Amino acid sequence: MPIRTMPTLNVGVLGYAGVARAHLNALKKLPYIFWSTPVRFRLVGIAGRSPSGVEDVARRYGFEYGVTDWRRVVEDPQIELLINCAPNDTHAGPCLAAAALGKHLLCEKPLGRDTGEARRMWDGVRRRPVCHQVSFNYRFIPAVRFARELIQAGEIGEIVHFRMRYTDDSLSDPSTPHTWRQERRRAGSGVVGDLASHVLDLGRFLVGEFRNVCGFSRIVVPRRPARPGARRMKPVDVEDCFVGAVEFATGALGTLEASGCCPGQKNFLTFEANGTRGSLRFNLERLNELEVFRAEPPVRRDRGFKTVLVTDADHPYGGRWWPSGHILGWEHPFVHQLHHLVQAILGNGAVAPLAATFADGYANARVCDAMLLAARTGRRIRV
Amino acid sequence: MPIRTMPTLNVGVLGYAGVARAHLNALKKLPYIFWSTPVRFRLVGIAGRSPSGVEDVARRYGFEYGVTDWRRVVEDPQIELLINCAPNDTHAGPCLAAAALGKHLLCEKPLGRDTGEARRMWDGVRRRPVCHQVSFNYRFIPAVRFARELIQAGEIGEIVHFRMRYTDDSLSDPSTPHTWRQERRRAGSGVVGDLASHVLDLGRFLVGEFRNVCGFSRIVVPRRPARPGARRMKPVDVEDCFVGAVEFATGALGTLEASGCCPGQKNFLTFEANGTRGSLRFNLERLNELEVFRAEPPVRRDRGFKTVLVTDADHPYGGRWWPSGHILGWEHPFVHQLHHLVQAILGNGAVAPLAATFADGYANARVCDAMLLAARTGRRIRV
Amino acid sequence: MPIRTMPTLNVGVLGYAGVARAHLNALKKLPYIFWSTPVRFRLVGIAGRSPSGVEDVARRYGFEYGVTDWRRVVEDPQIELLINCAPNDTHAGPCLAAAALGKHLLCEKPLGRDTGEARRMWDGVRRRPVCHQVSFNYRFIPAVRFARELIQAGEIGEIVHFRMRYTDDSLSDPSTPHTWRQERRRAGSGVVGDLASHVLDLGRFLVGEFRNVCGFSRIVVPRRPARPGARRMKPVDVEDCFVGAVEFATGALGTLEASGCCPGQKNFLTFEANGTRGSLRFNLERLNELEVFRAEPPVRRDRGFKTVLVTDADHPYGGRWWPSGHILGWEHPFVHQLHHLVQAILGNGAVAPLAATFADGYANARVCDAMLLAARTGRRIRV
Amino acid sequence: MPIRTMPTLNVGVLGYAGVARAHLNALKKLPYIFWSTPVRFRLVGIAGRSPSGVEDVARRYGFEYGVTDWRRVVEDPQIELLINCAPNDTHAGPCLAAAALGKHLLCEKPLGRDTGEARRMWDGVRRRPVCHQVSFNYRFIPAVRFARELIQAGEIGEIVHFRMRYTDDSLSDPSTPHTWRQERRRAGSGVVGDLASHVLDLGRFLVGEFRNVCGFSRIVVPRRPARPGARRMKPVDVEDCFVGAVEFATGALGTLEASGCCPGQKNFLTFEANGTRGSLRFNLERLNELEVFRAEPPVRRDRGFKTVLVTDADHPYGGRWWPSGHILGWEHPFVHQLHHLVQAILGNGAVAPLAATFADGYANARVCDAMLLAARTGRRIRV
Repeated sequence: MPIRTMPTLNVGVLGYAGVARAHLNALKKLPYIFWSTPVRFRLVGIAGRSPSGVEDVARRYGFEYGVTDWRRVVEDPQIELLINCAPNDTHAGPCLAAAALGKHLLCEKPLGRDTGEARRMWDGVRRRPVCHQVSFNYRFIPAVRFARELIQAGEIGEIVHFRMRYTDDSLSDPSTPHTWRQERRRAGSGVVGDLASHVLDLGRFLVGEFRNVCGFSRIVVPRRPARPGARRMKPVDVEDCFVGAVEFATGALGTLEASGCCPGQKNFLTFEANGTRGSLRFNLERLNELEVFRAEPPVRRDRGFKTVLVTDADHPYGGRWWPSGHILGWEHPFVHQLHHLVQAILGNGAVAPLAATFADGYANARVCDAMLLAARTGRRIRV
Repeated sequence: MPIRTMPTLNVGVLGYAGVARAHLNALKKLPYIFWSTPVRFRLVGIAGRSPSGVEDVARRYGFEYGVTDWRRVVEDPQIELLINCAPNDTHAGPCLAAAALGKHLLCEKPLGRDTGEARRMWDGVRRRPVCHQVSFNYRFIPAVRFARELIQAGEIGEIVHFRMRYTDDSLSDPSTPHTWRQERRRAGSGVVGDLASHVLDLGRFLVGEFRNVCGFSRIVVPRRPARPGARRMKPVDVEDCFVGAVEFATGALGTLEASGCCPGQKNFLTFEANGTRGSLRFNLERLNELEVFRAEPPVRRDRGFKTVLVTDADHPYGGRWWPSGHILGWEHPFVHQLHHLVQAILGNGAVAPLAATFADGYANARVCDAMLLAARTGRRIRV
Repeated sequence: MPIRTMPTLNVGVLGYAGVARAHLNALKKLPYIFWSTPVRFRLVGIAGRSPSGVEDVARRYGFEYGVTDWRRVVEDPQIELLINCAPNDTHAGPCLAAAALGKHLLCEKPLGRDTGEARRMWDGVRRRPVCHQVSFNYRFIPAVRFARELIQAGEIGEIVHFRMRYTDDSLSDPSTPHTWRQERRRAGSGVVGDLASHVLDLGRFLVGEFRNVCGFSRIVVPRRPARPGARRMKPVDVEDCFVGAVEFATGALGTLEASGCCPGQKNFLTFEANGTRGSLRFNLERLNELEVFRAEPPVRRDRGFKTVLVTDADHPYGGRWWPSGHILGWEHPFVHQLHHLVQAILGNGAVAPLAATFADGYANARVCDAMLLAARTGRRIRV
Repeated sequence: MPIRTMPTLNVGVLGYAGVARAHLNALKKLPYIFWSTPVRFRLVGIAGRSPSGVEDVARRYGFEYGVTDWRRVVEDPQIELLINCAPNDTHAGPCLAAAALGKHLLCEKPLGRDTGEARRMWDGVRRRPVCHQVSFNYRFIPAVRFARELIQAGEIGEIVHFRMRYTDDSLSDPSTPHTWRQERRRAGSGVVGDLASHVLDLGRFLVGEFRNVCGFSRIVVPRRPARPGARRMKPVDVEDCFVGAVEFATGALGTLEASGCCPGQKNFLTFEANGTRGSLRFNLERLNELEVFRAEPPVRRDRGFKTVLVTDADHPYGGRWWPSGHILGWEHPFVHQLHHLVQAILGNGAVAPLAATFADGYANARVCDAMLLAARTGRRIRV
């Protein structure tokens, strides 16, 4: 029986708060949900800033050790897969070190703080026998995957327009404290790297490469409390909103928006594709749904956008979880993404094109930097 | 540190397919997600119909053994908590046996196949020192809990109307095969016990006891293939749809619907409350959302239903999972429900009123049977 | 040219406020919007309660005279068509008198205050050479007509369920003053005649005859101020809410609700049909839209409810008004309805089955009275 | 009584098809719907291309004459108000001639074919004692007016973002024939002048002046059949889509889109405002609704977008038409707009700021031309 001979993958993780919790959840969940995945994870080591915090997490999740120095994890010879959920300024160092040691990589987005750093990271893995994946996990939402399948099958024709947006209200309140995300030195950029990168990746995933971009950015709240409730203010040196327009290599035109200043939006990543024969709409706040319009033949007069609950057995990842109509949450694509990487590590298929590789992470960084340059210079920038 | 002294709860489970997977998931997930829950589960035994199936599940989830005879699990002296996800005709026997042995119980709904059986089950636990809970897990959806909090705080005034509906299209296709759910002997009833029971429980949870009911039921598809693709047909002797009207003890009036014959509905449990000062609407297919209308003072002219994404830190279960706007799936209330039961077992609070006890399961059965009697006799039935 | 020989129809109207304004608007609008309708209206006389009010209206709309005594209009030998928008207790008298004089009739709903009165009105016209129409104008909403066409073409299969609802918040505030609608003597019934009658008519229009009904009614606010702001209270002796369940002659099951106590609902007439092959949903607050679900063949995975904006050139009444997507308002079905009646008067087609005749008004009254009787007696009532 | 002394306004109209029908409807409807408006229209003359068509229209609507030469109408000394619904290349000539003769003007949008022409038109009226209004009629949608009132009262704080979009699928099908709108010489521009102008006007109405713009345009379908079904193709020399980003003088950032290539969109003018304290959303396909989010004080946990049905008595134009919840259609703002102009002509208030004057038409043309220049040059353009 396959279970008896199930291979074990030794895993190390950097970071344990924030998005790391979704990666940790995926590690725990994959073995029992994805029946057909012949793998077992050995959770070797985890690194985090707070000694007591990381010790607590290690116990909870069953890691063999928790440490504050990421080097200990990266250099642990037992670890085969490194999941890097550290802040942006701790992406390149650990990933390059781990790659040099032949470890597989799953790195949070954005890959680097800028195009140069992302390029170095891509260079650090491209000729090594390691699987490398950037956590653009929204590619693994069933409705997003379904959108890709519909587009690739030509169901909506040739794409003419593609709108991209990722907005929330996390930065709307000026008393929300400063974090490393408001610091260029650590984060690289503001909402462009943090939010736009996600939806730009979906643009590349669904439509293709970008050719030209233009736009505007702004720092709406220039100073924030150094910590919650503090009087001391720290300056914000990255944008908290960006609006732009884009031209794809295919000639398709679109808009791009990222902002933390949109009251009422909580996790509002939306895209909309208009093709010559139909349209698609998606909203991360209702991530189980895809809206589909088909230019039906004239004999059918009931033309309109369909709200498709992408949970049926013949939908992407259908049947892996619950019955039709029993919706998934925000965390589930992380499980799918991890499953995909593990399959690649086991030699069952490649990371690309369904997942984002470090090459995609680098391409993404180029678009982000083009956006920022366009905003700064007032010129249309060729990507 | 509390973790070192974390108590262990020994668990046995009946059933491993269907809804059992959501309970198993909750067992795996609770320890690492609910940081503050000082408990560790020892997964002792699981019982299921297929020898190879149950063995496979036992390995996957880490049970010490898997068996085909539920008695082995029920009588295992090590097991402290029994989670019963077996078909309806295997609810009473195992639960009564386990209760007699002093085991805590989490039983799937409906509690029994009819009022009599539910009453015996309630009698079997009421004077024993065991925690007993019926898996009316939708009480643990954050938006449902939020609805209860708003109602109890008087935010929408006195309830005048309450509409209940649980419909899907699972029985719409006549070629969908027969299962035990189409057999009165095993299931007790059709969509009334399977679907209506859920939303009737929410009626009791949110509004209170029922006083009178009336309605109609029907068997739309009277025979189904004995198994997938089979020529041989088996008769259906339970209703596949029910429509009715209800009067609550408070005088509030409402409607009640359950049907498997609604094309396009997948998991369409909805309720709507109209009070003297506002209204609420909920739909399980968008379970993160609650629609709220408040009769605002005249100075505010922006009157309308709000779509509240119930994922903020100050919402029920807010902050336990992901950031605001990062939605939960259908499985999450099972985790909350298990957490609640474990707290009761550990002596931190009671099962009632937030979870459904066997007393609630019995009360629920009375309403379901009143519905069926009303449909059969054409009379208004007092619950 | 047809225009030169355009026939003239002499019209009299009873009532000028409330819904009468929609009928008056239709009289003004039909001649110039419906290019192809060869008719001109001569607005002869109008009757209303207030002498100055009716005089003002007469001048505004171009009536030759305005009077307070409806007999003067009914007996005017010039008048060929009587539009009766008076309160319910002034439906039978004028209509019977006018019919006896051979006048065509358009009467507001409900036809009579009860089955008996409706029957007398139907008897008064059935053997006379007059066109008679009850203003169940929602039949003339393009989306409703489209629903009928889809159902009749079998696009959603055989109807299994039909839900009907007409609710608003007009009676929710106890300080809303008493009107004739709260008085059984004048209105006949409360929300059953006023609201339920509309949606029950759509049930008959779309599905067919009712066989059995059951339900509950209630008077939530038993006394209301005699007039706005008054201290003196008048008793309410008709129901302000009704909930019930219905069985159609075809075996289809449904729910029926009418209430003035639903905060946040303004003009919330909704219906939903579930057939063996698809579903339809409609909401009067978005009357240009019809939601359509088709059980698509398996090859199409984008299953879901379509929101159809029923404004295309090949939709009912498409091309009569504005371009596709340029929505109509609540008043437009009145124009369609008048156009339909005028065509019948001119001998171009019959009033039935697309419009409601007095026979439909009588059938409607029977259902309404069955509802009220069911609520009063607690029995299932055969219609 | 005021009615006896009701003033009469002599009106001439250019054009009778397309949008002209909405203006003609407003002329018929205003006198009887707006009770309080003391005016009567004398419909003197109308001009249109087809002799039989214009004669027919003249009879239908009650004009004293119909002609094919617009000069006859413009120069008719009896006419006091000229409504110009002719194609774009017939805006400047008739308007300037009429203004020189002291006639009041209501001109369809865009005012001129480019900034220069719009400027000449503005110069032609600015020092003359005539009322001049451009038909940016969407300002007169109750929900749009309500949005303005909320913004001006500071209810959503300072505007940070404003998104503008007007898209449809009217140009998506390459077999849709060529019209004057596809010809630069006659139309001036494509979707920028036709669609973007409308939503840019709302941007100025709701937020204020534009400072900078950038973007892309494209001709997706470069040739179209010369007439319906024709083999002969005519070249399209204006854009059929535009995407861009904008910066307002206040610093607010936004996006702007206009396209005829969006399958499933029919009349999809949308805007969204994000302020420091709330957000607003609007969609012309549901023009009776305004979505409103308020950053509520923490004590209220039911945060979310409200769907406000802007039909209550205390809403803009509330009580003028039908009861609350009885929706208006696309045509109604034309009535409001005409009412506003007539009031200005009668000396009751000014055209600006609630309606668009020729000064607004000129300012609008400057933004449109900046958009087109930005798209052509790839530079950010200062308006």
